[in-house]
Amino acid sequence: MKIEYRPIGFVHSPFQTASGTPIQPSRAKGIEGTVVLEDEFIEALSDLDGFSHIILICHLHRALPFKLKVVPYLDTELRGLFATRAPSRPNPIGISVVRLLAIDGPRLRIEGVDLLDGTPVLDIKPFVRDFDDEIEVRCGWLDEVSGGDAVSDGRFER
Amino acid sequence: MKIEYRPIGFVHSPFQTASGTPIQPSRAKGIEGTVVLEDEFIEALSDLDGFSHIILICHLHRALPFKLKVVPYLDTELRGLFATRAPSRPNPIGISVVRLLAIDGPRLRIEGVDLLDGTPVLDIKPFVRDFDDEIEVRCGWLDEVSGGDAVSDGRFER
Repeated sequence: MKIEYRPIGFVHSPFQTASGTPIQPSRAKGIEGTVVLEDEFIEALSDLDGFSHIILICHLHRALPFKLKVVPYLDTELRGLFATRAPSRPNPIGISVVRLLAIDGPRLRIEGVDLLDGTPVLDIKPFVRDFDDEIEVRCGWLDEVSGGDAVSDGRFER
Repeated sequence: MKIEYRPIGFVHSPFQTASGTPIQPSRAKGIEGTVVLEDEFIEALSDLDGFSHIILICHLHRALPFKLKVVPYLDTELRGLFATRAPSRPNPIGISVVRLLAIDGPRLRIEGVDLLDGTPVLDIKPFVRDFDDEIEVRCGWLDEVSGGDAVSDGRFER
């Protein structure tokens, strides 16, 4: 069974390589970028300007082929891939919650960019706290490691 | 440019049709299901049991072709598709944060299931509050509508 998607647009960001790119939007405060959608989708952006944050679902086009275990950022031990946010996944899909600054036609100006320049965007969803939030959260190995580096190196990039 | 993915596994849930299915995991408290991964991915599940919640990224295989504007659940007005969580999207990708109850080999028992039986799973990520949470969130049209129905009807389903 094959599933076929196509980009609805692309990310423009200051980052040309994974090395030095923030590992998550929460580590990318103040970093701005742009999503430029195909013109056919402009109408589907109506009402989105009421939301302060959006979820970008992206194809991580530069990710290396997946491995079952990886040493994730913030850690020094091998962990099961699905217990990490490493980009080298069976289907290299990334989720980024970013702040929506402005919409102008097919262009969305965003803040909190942790994505490489040229990343294909597959979907945009409104970020809704009520839907996404949970009261009690345990975070396994991540609860045990401290801050650490907040930017990538090239370990997952092609 | 075409992007090709394949299921890493499938969801088993009590829901055979969209009508009556909870519209979000937060509306599906107590509803249990199972994700069964392909055996080749078992090792990639290491360390995931330390996390209380996981993000399922799924291909919404029963979604109708997308429209630029839809009347979303909880509302009575046409809204731009990207300002909604409606499943009929250019790339019908769904995100569900569910509680992880147990892992047994390739099987993940989960709670908070808002997915149809047989939904293909594309990726599993740990849910991490620090990464996903934002302090101030505005939610546009959703801030204006009250609770409303918490289950789907068939409007987006094929």
